[in-house]
Amino acid sequence: MNRLEVRCFSLSIDGYGAGADQTLAQPLGKDGERVHEWMFATRTWARLQGRDGGETGIDDHFASRGFEGIGAWILGRNMFGPPRGFDTAAQEWKGWWGDTPPYHCPVFVLTHEPRPPLQMAGGTTFHFVGGGIEAALESAREAAAGGDIRLGGGVATIRAYLRARLVDRLHLAIAPVLLGSGEALFAGIDLPALGYRCTEQAATAKATHVVLTRDG
Amino acid sequence: MNRLEVRCFSLSIDGYGAGADQTLAQPLGKDGERVHEWMFATRTWARLQGRDGGETGIDDHFASRGFEGIGAWILGRNMFGPPRGFDTAAQEWKGWWGDTPPYHCPVFVLTHEPRPPLQMAGGTTFHFVGGGIEAALESAREAAAGGDIRLGGGVATIRAYLRARLVDRLHLAIAPVLLGSGEALFAGIDLPALGYRCTEQAATAKATHVVLTRDG
Repeated sequence: MNRLEVRCFSLSIDGYGAGADQTLAQPLGKDGERVHEWMFATRTWARLQGRDGGETGIDDHFASRGFEGIGAWILGRNMFGPPRGFDTAAQEWKGWWGDTPPYHCPVFVLTHEPRPPLQMAGGTTFHFVGGGIEAALESAREAAAGGDIRLGGGVATIRAYLRARLVDRLHLAIAPVLLGSGEALFAGIDLPALGYRCTEQAATAKATHVVLTRDG
Repeated sequence: MNRLEVRCFSLSIDGYGAGADQTLAQPLGKDGERVHEWMFATRTWARLQGRDGGETGIDDHFASRGFEGIGAWILGRNMFGPPRGFDTAAQEWKGWWGDTPPYHCPVFVLTHEPRPPLQMAGGTTFHFVGGGIEAALESAREAAAGGDIRLGGGVATIRAYLRARLVDRLHLAIAPVLLGSGEALFAGIDLPALGYRCTEQAATAKATHVVLTRDG
């Protein structure tokens, strides 16, 4: 069966997956972009932006693996947006990523306010799912057509899928940055008790990459 | 003035500094020794045990730096012991480290049950301080005679000194291990707000070393 995987999810040393106070100007919260710097420097990222160049090496290896074999994505409500302060009555929110989001496949957005699917340029269609995390996963599995499903985040969404024992593998990138507050990925979640262990580790100056795999 | 530093403090990926259920047989709690494996392999550790050999390289560099210029230590009550199950009426507890502890200088142990100083082989004397963390630091500063003071742990003790803004620098070693529960170092402590930032990072297959330094 296709797998549900967290890939390229960046954390600070103190375990925060995003900074506090997400706003329109700071989609990743206060200082949240700093945990992603390893990714922004890679060739994979440059290509996603339609640019040449970018670094190869371990960071790029993990960035590139993040997209391999993915047939669908799942995003939490906050990761899709809109953030506080956006006037939903005046304009329709289409995500943070402009006209051509970097997904290029079906994306299932968890929401309490279902709306019609939103077709974007480049092959991305956002589907808004109101039936909870298991219903979203079921829809994503069908849409992925044999591909794996990438769970994009944010932290609350990953924690919900972890507690439900639905995540097969996580690749986390721990950046040499302190955030101090925000959403803590690990708090109160006993990963070994849920069957996870660290199966891979590789580090650069910008991030320590760890892969956590669930037994069985 | 001499500095108060945490050095070589090992953490799991999920941020625990020791495992759950500390006992006489498991001083570091369940699976807690696994976060220290980077240290056990080093030449510095071998020498502390009176053995030859051991690895050199980044892990050893940090292990060795851990002892440089240290004039006194501070340990929390649980780090010194005794753990639950030890019969304090029948025998006197002398710490976890045998007759020749690896400190070789004055060690100030936080306790609610003061007792006379305990002189060990190799230059270590344990002093039991009942007046709280600031009094212990003051005594350690005097005893260190210009050397720095190493704050050995455990997690609760480090957190208390962090909240009191008394720690100048922390070297943490994050091991590719999940503990799942235990004592969480970072929970509810906003290190950037306390003035810390990450000033150094270096990684091996066994640990990612980060140095957190307080401004000013």
